[in-house]
Amino acid sequence: MQKRKMRMGMIGGGLEGFIGATHRKAAFLDGHIELVCGAFSSNAQTCINTGETLYLPKERCYSSYIEMIKKESLLHKDIRMDFVSIVTPNYLHYPMAKLALEHGFHVICDKPLCFKVEEAKELEALCKKKDLIFALTHAYSSYPMVKQARKMIADNTIGKIRKIIVEYPQGWLSASLEKTKHAQAAWRMNPKTAGISCCVADIGTHCLNLLEYITALEVQYVCADLSSFGEGRLLDDDANVLLRLNKGVKGILHASQISQGEENDLNIRIYGEEGSLSWSQMRPNTLSLKKQDHITQTYSVGGAYMEDIAKYNTRLPAGHPEGLLEAFANLYRNFAFCIQDKENNQTSSKENLDFPGIKEGLRGMIFTNACVHNSNSGEKWTKL
Amino acid sequence: MQKRKMRMGMIGGGLEGFIGATHRKAAFLDGHIELVCGAFSSNAQTCINTGETLYLPKERCYSSYIEMIKKESLLHKDIRMDFVSIVTPNYLHYPMAKLALEHGFHVICDKPLCFKVEEAKELEALCKKKDLIFALTHAYSSYPMVKQARKMIADNTIGKIRKIIVEYPQGWLSASLEKTKHAQAAWRMNPKTAGISCCVADIGTHCLNLLEYITALEVQYVCADLSSFGEGRLLDDDANVLLRLNKGVKGILHASQISQGEENDLNIRIYGEEGSLSWSQMRPNTLSLKKQDHITQTYSVGGAYMEDIAKYNTRLPAGHPEGLLEAFANLYRNFAFCIQDKENNQTSSKENLDFPGIKEGLRGMIFTNACVHNSNSGEKWTKL
Amino acid sequence: MQKRKMRMGMIGGGLEGFIGATHRKAAFLDGHIELVCGAFSSNAQTCINTGETLYLPKERCYSSYIEMIKKESLLHKDIRMDFVSIVTPNYLHYPMAKLALEHGFHVICDKPLCFKVEEAKELEALCKKKDLIFALTHAYSSYPMVKQARKMIADNTIGKIRKIIVEYPQGWLSASLEKTKHAQAAWRMNPKTAGISCCVADIGTHCLNLLEYITALEVQYVCADLSSFGEGRLLDDDANVLLRLNKGVKGILHASQISQGEENDLNIRIYGEEGSLSWSQMRPNTLSLKKQDHITQTYSVGGAYMEDIAKYNTRLPAGHPEGLLEAFANLYRNFAFCIQDKENNQTSSKENLDFPGIKEGLRGMIFTNACVHNSNSGEKWTKL
Amino acid sequence: MQKRKMRMGMIGGGLEGFIGATHRKAAFLDGHIELVCGAFSSNAQTCINTGETLYLPKERCYSSYIEMIKKESLLHKDIRMDFVSIVTPNYLHYPMAKLALEHGFHVICDKPLCFKVEEAKELEALCKKKDLIFALTHAYSSYPMVKQARKMIADNTIGKIRKIIVEYPQGWLSASLEKTKHAQAAWRMNPKTAGISCCVADIGTHCLNLLEYITALEVQYVCADLSSFGEGRLLDDDANVLLRLNKGVKGILHASQISQGEENDLNIRIYGEEGSLSWSQMRPNTLSLKKQDHITQTYSVGGAYMEDIAKYNTRLPAGHPEGLLEAFANLYRNFAFCIQDKENNQTSSKENLDFPGIKEGLRGMIFTNACVHNSNSGEKWTKL
Repeated sequence: MQKRKMRMGMIGGGLEGFIGATHRKAAFLDGHIELVCGAFSSNAQTCINTGETLYLPKERCYSSYIEMIKKESLLHKDIRMDFVSIVTPNYLHYPMAKLALEHGFHVICDKPLCFKVEEAKELEALCKKKDLIFALTHAYSSYPMVKQARKMIADNTIGKIRKIIVEYPQGWLSASLEKTKHAQAAWRMNPKTAGISCCVADIGTHCLNLLEYITALEVQYVCADLSSFGEGRLLDDDANVLLRLNKGVKGILHASQISQGEENDLNIRIYGEEGSLSWSQMRPNTLSLKKQDHITQTYSVGGAYMEDIAKYNTRLPAGHPEGLLEAFANLYRNFAFCIQDKENNQTSSKENLDFPGIKEGLRGMIFTNACVHNSNSGEKWTKL
Repeated sequence: MQKRKMRMGMIGGGLEGFIGATHRKAAFLDGHIELVCGAFSSNAQTCINTGETLYLPKERCYSSYIEMIKKESLLHKDIRMDFVSIVTPNYLHYPMAKLALEHGFHVICDKPLCFKVEEAKELEALCKKKDLIFALTHAYSSYPMVKQARKMIADNTIGKIRKIIVEYPQGWLSASLEKTKHAQAAWRMNPKTAGISCCVADIGTHCLNLLEYITALEVQYVCADLSSFGEGRLLDDDANVLLRLNKGVKGILHASQISQGEENDLNIRIYGEEGSLSWSQMRPNTLSLKKQDHITQTYSVGGAYMEDIAKYNTRLPAGHPEGLLEAFANLYRNFAFCIQDKENNQTSSKENLDFPGIKEGLRGMIFTNACVHNSNSGEKWTKL
Repeated sequence: MQKRKMRMGMIGGGLEGFIGATHRKAAFLDGHIELVCGAFSSNAQTCINTGETLYLPKERCYSSYIEMIKKESLLHKDIRMDFVSIVTPNYLHYPMAKLALEHGFHVICDKPLCFKVEEAKELEALCKKKDLIFALTHAYSSYPMVKQARKMIADNTIGKIRKIIVEYPQGWLSASLEKTKHAQAAWRMNPKTAGISCCVADIGTHCLNLLEYITALEVQYVCADLSSFGEGRLLDDDANVLLRLNKGVKGILHASQISQGEENDLNIRIYGEEGSLSWSQMRPNTLSLKKQDHITQTYSVGGAYMEDIAKYNTRLPAGHPEGLLEAFANLYRNFAFCIQDKENNQTSSKENLDFPGIKEGLRGMIFTNACVHNSNSGEKWTKL
Repeated sequence: MQKRKMRMGMIGGGLEGFIGATHRKAAFLDGHIELVCGAFSSNAQTCINTGETLYLPKERCYSSYIEMIKKESLLHKDIRMDFVSIVTPNYLHYPMAKLALEHGFHVICDKPLCFKVEEAKELEALCKKKDLIFALTHAYSSYPMVKQARKMIADNTIGKIRKIIVEYPQGWLSASLEKTKHAQAAWRMNPKTAGISCCVADIGTHCLNLLEYITALEVQYVCADLSSFGEGRLLDDDANVLLRLNKGVKGILHASQISQGEENDLNIRIYGEEGSLSWSQMRPNTLSLKKQDHITQTYSVGGAYMEDIAKYNTRLPAGHPEGLLEAFANLYRNFAFCIQDKENNQTSSKENLDFPGIKEGLRGMIFTNACVHNSNSGEKWTKL
C-alpha cells in the first residue's frame, strides 16, 4: 500500500520567532510531513510573508486560526491538512486545540497543554470522541538516550530507585527582558498569556516529564520554594522543589531562568540500589552508568549495543552528533506515522505510539499548580 | 518574487545504506528542497521500494542514472529535477556528474570528487561552460563553529599561524569487515571502486578540507606513512602524515580506520603566535580559544557574540545541540539558494556561496595522490 | 631569625585507616612539620606498629591520648610536641581537644567539631584563655580555586548573589557496609560514636562550609528531607535541603552516601545578577565563570591571572594537577605558620590565618541540628 | 627491624626556581626521606637562604656540589646523606652524578640524563661497580593510571598494538622568554647548558618514556620535523615525529613549547587489535578503555577494580584527586625504599624497583640524537 505524506497546518510560528521554525524543521527532517497551510501570525502581513518564505500559496495563508480550521475543513480530503501544529503562547493552546479537534483535525501542540484541569479533560474527551491523535511537544523525552535510559530502568539495570535529581537551569531571564521589547520574555512573564507560573510551567514541566518518562514513577508530593528575582515580576523565574515519589523514592527538581550563563542544561541523575544513570541535554549522545566498585560505563548513541527503541530514534552512525531537532523530529515522525496508521486502519506500533500527549500535559499542569500552591502556603508537603 | 523549492533527483541512496538517508534529511530539513525522482539502486526492486518509502511516484523511480538524467531532461521545466545528488561509491562520481552536467543539471556530490586530476578539470570546465553549480559534501566544514573559527583566523585572532594538528580517528575497520558481507567496507577496500586509497581518500581528505578551509592555508609538502593493518588489505586503513604548508607553517595530519573504539573524532588544533583554537566534531557546538597567560575562552554556538557567518548557519538558541545533519543541511541549503538565485538571475550572497566544490575536490585528490606516492617512495617530502 | 619545624603529635590514625595517613602526608608535604609522637590506636600493638612505620621512637608511641598529652606536657619545650592532630571518630573530638588545650597544646581536628553547642563554646573559651590555635580540617575549602572563587565574589565579579546549589554525592554506603566489619561505616552509622546524623554531619557540613566560605553568606533557614535508605539504619544516609540565606539568597544543598557510583563529587554553583561561578572537587584545578551573552571563561590553577591568595596556595605551574593532599597541606601549612608566628611573637598574615576553626565547626553543628530537627518535624522552615 | 628515614642532599633547587621545591615536596610527602644538606645554588647567599627556609643548619649548606659531596663523605655514616638529588640544568647532570657515585652516594637526577652516550654508559658502569642506585625523574610514568595501563597492556587487554599517538604540547616558550631574564627559558635555549635540543630533550623524552614504559615496545625509527619558531633560536621549540616501533607498530610523537595556551597536556592513545587506551596527564585519575561496538569504560584511580600495582601507587580513596606531586612522590618513595632495602640487605620488591633509571635516560638521549639528526638530514627514516 502506497502511503502519503501527512499534511500539516501551522498556527503561530511567524518568521520573527524561533519556535515555529524549530517545529517546521523537525516536521520536515524525515520527509513524512509537508506544510500545506498556516495561520502564522495575528499580523496579516507577517502571516503572508511567512507563508511565502515557506513556498505556500497565498490562499492557504490564513489570517486567523479560526479561518484556517474552518476553511481547511471544507477542502477536499485529498488536499486539506491532516493535523494542526500549535506553536503559540500558552493561553491560546486550549481554544485552538479545541477548535481543531472539533473540526476533525489531529493536533500537535507546544507545552504546557493549557491552564485548567477541566480544559485538559475536555480535550481528552474530544480526542476520544473524535478518534483523533494529540501530541504534546515535550521534545527532550524523544532523545534516543532518554529512551535508552527508560528501557534500562524498566529492565532493572540499576535496581530499585532511591533518589532522583533533575535540573533545568537557564539564564536568559537574568535581566528583565520583559521590560524591553523582547516578545518571548513579555508573554512568558504576563499572567494573562502564561498562566500562574513562568519558570515551573515553562521548563519545570520538562523536568517533570523527563523524570516521569524515564523512571515510570510518579511525583506525589512537592515542597517548593519559588522565587521572582527579577524586579516587579508577577511570576516565578526560579524554582527549588523537594520531591516525594511513589515507591519511597525521594528527589530534587530545580528549574531556573535566572541562572546567569546557563543555556539549556536540562539534566537528570537517577540513583538505584544497584547503580545510577546520568544524562544531560547539552551532551545528549552519551549516557553514564555507574555502579559502586565498578568501572564507569558510557553509552554512545549509535552504538551496536544500544536498545532497539533507541536505535529506532537514531539517524546517524555513532560519533556523528544528533541534537534537539532530531529529538523533536522523532516526536513529529512518530505522531505522523500514527496518523498514517489510522488512515490506513492499521494499529500503530509501540515504538510509534511513544510520544507525550494529553496525559503528560495534565501531569505538568497538576505539578505546576501544586508547586505554586505549596510555595505560597506554609505547608511543607503538598499532594499532587 | 515568489520563489519555489528546488527539485532534487538522487543517484544512489537505496534504503539499505545510511548515506542516502543522511543526504535526504539534510536536504529536507529547511524545506527548500523536494525530492522528485531517483535512481536509488542498480537493483530495480530496491530502487522502487526506496522511492515508495519516499512517497515518489513509480514513474520517477528510474532503473539507472543514465535513464534518470536522460528522461528528466526531457520533462517540462516546471516538473523536472533541478539538480542531482550523487551518493554512490567513489568510482561512479565522475561519470555520473559528467552526464548530469552535460544535460544541464546542477550537481551535489559526495566526496571524493573523482580519481584523476583530468577528470576533475573536465568537470570544472563543464560547469563553467554550462553555467552550473557543483557542490562537494565535505559537510564537516559547514558546522557553525568551523565557520566561526575561519572568521576568527581571518580576523587575526590568534596571530600568524605556526602549527596545525588535524586528526580523524575511526575504528570501524579494525576488523576486516570487507571479508563479511559489509557493503560499505567492501567497496571502500576495493581499488576498483574506491581508487588508490581507502583511509586517506575517505577521511584524510576531510582533514585536509577542514584544515585548508579554516586557515586559508595550503598544504604544500607531505611526508606520509600509510599502513594496511587489516590482513590482506590492498588499500590503506591508517595514515600518519607530516605537513608543510605555505607561510612556514608546520603540521600533522593523521587519519585512521583501525583506531579501535574511536567513532568519528575529527578534530583540529591551530596554534598561532598569539593564541590557539581547537574544535572537535564530536563536541561541535563549542570552540576553545587559548592564549598564553590568559583565561581559556569557550565559545558556544548560539551565543550572542558569535560571528554573523556562524549565526547564518545556526538554527537553535544556545544550549540546544545541533549536529552533523544540521551541518550537512547548511551545505544543501546554501547550494539550493545559489540555484534559486541563478534561476532568478540574482547574485548569490557570500554566505550562500560558502560551500565546497570542485576546487576542494581537486585539492583532496592531489593530496591523496601525494600521500600514496610519498608513502611508497623513500623520499622524505613530496610536493603537492 | 632561624625558625624551626613544628612538632606534631597525632591522636588516632593507626595504620589500618586512611584518614591518619592523609593528615600526615598533608602535614609533611611542605617540610614545616615533623611528627614526634602519637597515640595512634587504642590497640597498643597497632599503636607501636604505626609508630615504627613512621620512624618514631617507642617511648613516644603512647597507649592513650591522655598519657600522651600528660607526658608530653612534662617534656622539655625543645622536644615536646607543639600541637596535636585529632583524627578519631567524631565522639572523641571534644574530650581530646579539651585535654590538649588544657595542657597548652594547639589543636588541629578532623570535622565535625563535636556534638553540642556548649562543648564548642567551651573549646572556644579555652583557646582564648590559653592563647592557642585551633584548626578544623574542612580541607576542601583550602583548594586554590576555592580561594580564587571567594576572592572573585568578594570583588563583586558576579554581582549580588541570587541562588546557590551545593552538592556532595557519595555512593560508598549504598550497601549496608556497617553490617560487615567495615570500621569506618560502623562508627559513622552508630549514634554513640557519630552523633545525631551521619550524612549531614559527615559531608553536608562540608557543603555548608564550602558555601559559606566562598560566598561569605550565612544559611539562615533550612527545609530538609533526610532519609535512611539502608535497611535498619538509625542515622541519615541522604539529605535534600532547601536553603534560605541572608540577603535574600536562595539555595539547595544535597548530600548523599547512597548515590551509587558517585565518588566525592562535592561541587558548587553560584548565580549572581551579573554572572555565575561553578567548581567541582573532582576537577579542582579549573573554575568556570559564565555571564549571559558572554564567552565562557575557564580559570586554571597556576595561571598568571590568578589572584594572589590562590597563588599562595598553589605549588606547581599550570597544567600539573594538584589534588586533595595539596589542599589539605595548605590548611596544615597555614596552621603551622600561625604557631610559628606565635612562638616568634609575630602577627600572622591574612593568608596564613585563612583556615577553618571553631567558628566554622559551630556553624556545622548548628546546621546539622537544624536539618535533623526540620526533617523530623512538620514545619517547613527551621531557623539556624 | 627498625628502619630509618633516608637522608637526602640536594644539588640545585634554590628558592627562586620551582623544580627544587617540587622534588623536595615529593621527597617529603610520605615521610620516608629527610633533607639533611644541600648545595642549592652557585650563589652562596641564595644557598644559605634556601637552607634556612628548609630548617637546615648552616654547616650543611654547602657552597658547591663538590664541597658537599666531599665533606658529606667524611661524616659519620649515622649522619651523612644517603643520596643526592640533582635538580640543576642539563649540562651539570653528568659531572655531578659522577662525583656522587664515585663517593658512594645513590643518585636521583632530573632528566635528561646527560649529553653523550659514553657518559651514560660510564654512569651505568659506576653504579654497577659501586652497587648504587640511580633514579631518573621521568615522574609522569609514576602516575597510578600509567601503571594501570602498563599492566593492562601486559595482560593483553587491547590485543596486539597497532598504533600509538603520544603528545606533549606546551605553550610557555611561544614568546622568546629567553631574551628576557627568564632563567629557565635562558638555559633551556642555550646549547651550552641544554645540549643539542630543547623541546625534544626536555619534553619529547617524556613522551618517549611514557610510550615505552606503558607498552614495553621500543621506538626503532624516527622521521622528524623539528622547528625553531622563536626568532633567533638555536634549538628546537617544536617537534613532529613519525615513529616505527618493533612488532610492526606505527606511531606519532609530537612535542611543542610554542603551542599557545597549552599547559602540560602530555597524553597518549594506544590502539590495539582488540581495544584502545587513552590517558592524559592533565586528567590523570581516569583512563579510558574503548572497544569497537562496546560501551566505553572509564577507570578511576582508587577504584576497587584497579590493579595492585596501581593501588600501591595510590594514596586516597576514589574521587579525591591526586596530582603530579603524588606521582613524583611515588618515584621518590620507591627509590628510598630500595636504598633502605639495600642497607638492610633485603631484596627490593618488583613494586619498589619500578622507577626509571639510566637505561631510560639512555633511551631518551638516543631518541633525541636520532630526531635531531633526521630532521637535519634529507633521509626519511633514521634508526635509533
